[in-house]
Amino acid sequence: MHVFFNGKITEIENAVLSPFDRGFLFGDGVYEVIRYYPKKFFLLEDHLARLRNSLKELEIPAPDLSSIEQILNELIRVNNLTDKLSIAYLQISRGYQFPRRHAFIEEASPTFFIYVENFPAKIDEMKNGVKVGLDEDIRWTRCDIKSTSLIPNILSNKKAVRNNLAEIIWHRNGIITEGTHSNIFFVKDNTIITPPLNNFILAGITRKAILAICKQTGMESCERPVNIDEMKTFDEIFITSTLGEITPVMEINGSIANTGKPGAVTIKLQNEFQKLYADFVAP
Amino acid sequence: MHVFFNGKITEIENAVLSPFDRGFLFGDGVYEVIRYYPKKFFLLEDHLARLRNSLKELEIPAPDLSSIEQILNELIRVNNLTDKLSIAYLQISRGYQFPRRHAFIEEASPTFFIYVENFPAKIDEMKNGVKVGLDEDIRWTRCDIKSTSLIPNILSNKKAVRNNLAEIIWHRNGIITEGTHSNIFFVKDNTIITPPLNNFILAGITRKAILAICKQTGMESCERPVNIDEMKTFDEIFITSTLGEITPVMEINGSIANTGKPGAVTIKLQNEFQKLYADFVAP
Repeated sequence: MHVFFNGKITEIENAVLSPFDRGFLFGDGVYEVIRYYPKKFFLLEDHLARLRNSLKELEIPAPDLSSIEQILNELIRVNNLTDKLSIAYLQISRGYQFPRRHAFIEEASPTFFIYVENFPAKIDEMKNGVKVGLDEDIRWTRCDIKSTSLIPNILSNKKAVRNNLAEIIWHRNGIITEGTHSNIFFVKDNTIITPPLNNFILAGITRKAILAICKQTGMESCERPVNIDEMKTFDEIFITSTLGEITPVMEINGSIANTGKPGAVTIKLQNEFQKLYADFVAP
Repeated sequence: MHVFFNGKITEIENAVLSPFDRGFLFGDGVYEVIRYYPKKFFLLEDHLARLRNSLKELEIPAPDLSSIEQILNELIRVNNLTDKLSIAYLQISRGYQFPRRHAFIEEASPTFFIYVENFPAKIDEMKNGVKVGLDEDIRWTRCDIKSTSLIPNILSNKKAVRNNLAEIIWHRNGIITEGTHSNIFFVKDNTIITPPLNNFILAGITRKAILAICKQTGMESCERPVNIDEMKTFDEIFITSTLGEITPVMEINGSIANTGKPGAVTIKLQNEFQKLYADFVAP
């Protein structure tokens, strides 16, 4: 497998880190996961804008990203994924610093790592929906930064897996935030509702695309706080993510969501969303 | 420099990690910092007990720790630190997992890394005290686990450094928790007060030693929630940590603490604490 590591494409065996990399010592880094629909990386500019913002918030010097699309495409090519639905994982840590001290030096030399992987769509989940759980949000208060300090996400995600759930949806004091790796949407009387952007949720790229679709197609949408007590009042619920796109929620915390099958608004949004990348999917 | 890496003592150059180590991808690991007072590691059993607890909470398989004291002493010896005040840093990450997925595999092979470093006492701070700030606690709600997902600590610590403060003391909704790398104590009418152990603070090893000293010497102590509004009512304030031991606080959030110099109770505790390791400091 070939990866990108600190300026060049190389065999994964050549990508080696010091234990003094702050990504290892402190979870001091940021990341993105980007979808490759043959033959193009999808919403790349949005992902890069969010990556730059995460770097800025953590004061990690941004590496040169001007040729990132060529690098990503080259990684796809050398790994023989040109015609396969894939993902790119990008991580930038603050890099090596010795000795270990909490306070970071200003003149950091970040570590930049990218790998690509064939990642088929979860067609069954997207078509037939998933079960999700509800749990208290245990994370820090800057969830708008896509950092690699991900222990809370890991613990909640493991809980989901153990309970045969596709996702855990978090709430803070009863107010819904998001899932461990997804945003959440609700539908009531044909209005599409999602929690507003603030420091408690990540500005999802798929979330943004859906709100744009609503504007373009004239579907009603509304960003507002949602209380866990409202769950049973919604006509439809779905979660969104780069890999899951729009995934209907059939059950939340043990209660049936929707009518037991994906709702009309969810399906319409799925179709509109698929049009966004249909153009560049190879025939 | 020689370090311990995955079962053996080796040159630091031989300690190399894959980017697929979950310590790098997810901040998925735990750590300890242990004081070496020539010629012995101090309160080693307490540190190892906390390390085991952190591993258990994150379900990271515990490595064999039965010969850890020999390994630590050997590291001190080969790095020529036998007669120097030093520290050992121990980190255990969940190890390599490919491909990258949030959910961890059960049969992990943890990465175990230890390095030692000459680390002189901050004598001036311990003698003359420090200034600290107050800030909202931005961390997750399982601060009892000493995990390497440390981005919140890094951001607050950097804020301290930029404001010429030795530490930031956090509070949640006005209730004091702890510092970015210390616990906090207050003295009122000769009673020594510190916030109680719960999921919002780390069970400090120095904190534990101080409460034991209080019991043994008959000094009054009390674990209770402390409100930020109480700051001006205390006679003395000090912070505790493995490296800072007992450090008097002279100013908190811009207000004078104590009488402008370290208080009598703080100094008495410092003396009692130093007795704990005086025995094995080489003459």
